[in-house]
Amino acid sequence: MTDESPRSSVGTLVLLRHGESEWNASNQFTGWVDVNLTDKGIAEGKRAGSLMREQNVLPDVVYTSLLRRAISTANIALDVADRHWIPVVRDWRLNERHYGKLQGLNKAQIRDEFGDEQFMAWRRSYDTPPPPIEAGTEFSQDGDPRYDGIDVPQTECLKDVVVRMIPYWEETISQDLLAGKNVLVAAHGNSLRALVKHLDGISDDDIAGLNIPTGIPLRYDLDENLSPLNPGGTYLDPDAAAAGAAAVANQGAK
Amino acid sequence: MTDESPRSSVGTLVLLRHGESEWNASNQFTGWVDVNLTDKGIAEGKRAGSLMREQNVLPDVVYTSLLRRAISTANIALDVADRHWIPVVRDWRLNERHYGKLQGLNKAQIRDEFGDEQFMAWRRSYDTPPPPIEAGTEFSQDGDPRYDGIDVPQTECLKDVVVRMIPYWEETISQDLLAGKNVLVAAHGNSLRALVKHLDGISDDDIAGLNIPTGIPLRYDLDENLSPLNPGGTYLDPDAAAAGAAAVANQGAK
Repeated sequence: MTDESPRSSVGTLVLLRHGESEWNASNQFTGWVDVNLTDKGIAEGKRAGSLMREQNVLPDVVYTSLLRRAISTANIALDVADRHWIPVVRDWRLNERHYGKLQGLNKAQIRDEFGDEQFMAWRRSYDTPPPPIEAGTEFSQDGDPRYDGIDVPQTECLKDVVVRMIPYWEETISQDLLAGKNVLVAAHGNSLRALVKHLDGISDDDIAGLNIPTGIPLRYDLDENLSPLNPGGTYLDPDAAAAGAAAVANQGAK
Repeated sequence: MTDESPRSSVGTLVLLRHGESEWNASNQFTGWVDVNLTDKGIAEGKRAGSLMREQNVLPDVVYTSLLRRAISTANIALDVADRHWIPVVRDWRLNERHYGKLQGLNKAQIRDEFGDEQFMAWRRSYDTPPPPIEAGTEFSQDGDPRYDGIDVPQTECLKDVVVRMIPYWEETISQDLLAGKNVLVAAHGNSLRALVKHLDGISDDDIAGLNIPTGIPLRYDLDENLSPLNPGGTYLDPDAAAAGAAAVANQGAK
């Protein structure tokens, strides 16, 4: 059953955080709440597609979360890149971190009420989850049919996302890359941070300082062990990415 | 390996012809040319999603062709129906009939040039394909990466579509229905006519008179042999469907 022919070269990985959502714009914790893109977010999706097309970074398959803001961003970008026809895989393990009881709450208000230290621990510590959301409340996902058969989390820290995300990466996305396919992953700030932490071998402490901007494709060229040849990846628009990452870091500021 | 438990009930099949495309509007033969939806086509996609939501006809999986007008219609409708997160399968065998050398040409001009009888034979006869398209010409699909590994047709009659479509139906879509899933098929006038011919047992002659309007979901309730319990299917908006089918029949008129 083994194939002794030389392995084809590894494909290119492109990570894309969804464009601005309604709750990015209103500075609310979102998590698994299924909000829409804003007009700015739609424009970011189109720009992402233009960058992929112009730089000839053309995916053969796309992976998305089960959340509208990532799905719409992928649809929009792929349409502009003329790759709307590629195979699609969706999985909840690419979802944003579940923000527990914070889902729906305003980031600045939470910072005021709980103080800078607690606020940053919930946002950026590796292993401190927010308090769990209560079942049946407005922003809980209990009973949502898209999660049938899944034990929906009531809250998650980044470590929890790594635990669900990395096995999925190894079983599915990695296999497509090893088969030589170019893969687009359209997902979220924290599911992509979990993946970047794994790819670049970032420590539990240092990952707190890593922010991924919305809507700018991040390209990784990988060796056949799936280690990055370009550690940290290469944004298709580096200037916009630097400005965007600074804006993410500043969220919750007054 | 057999499972002796009672089979779960068969799922519901929903057929959706894409909304109005740019070449529907300009009265050109389209086939495999990858044109966009018009604003009216986008509105039809939204309306299709509203109908599915209001009548609780909610797909568990969507199949599309590899053509933008079907993919976009599905994306738009599923977003409105809050089913954007379901699994997606795309396959060239759901593509529109390849219109050969007629692709890109105006229907009224072809009718004028070749006469009513030849025009209707190319449009509606079961087994008369138009002349083949020449490789390398503007509206040929040779070299299109989405068809890598596929022997791209140079022209097709409806019979050719049946020959490629029905085995695909039996191997994939049928299996999902038999497993109890509700299936949305977002495709084209002639790939859906091929499927309806098969489902309803329509003769090679009678299929000429069957027209499927754009953008109105057509529901089939099937027994466990996948025979329709509602022969001919049920449009989710019957009045709009009757008007739309008459408009399709009238295409090419001056």
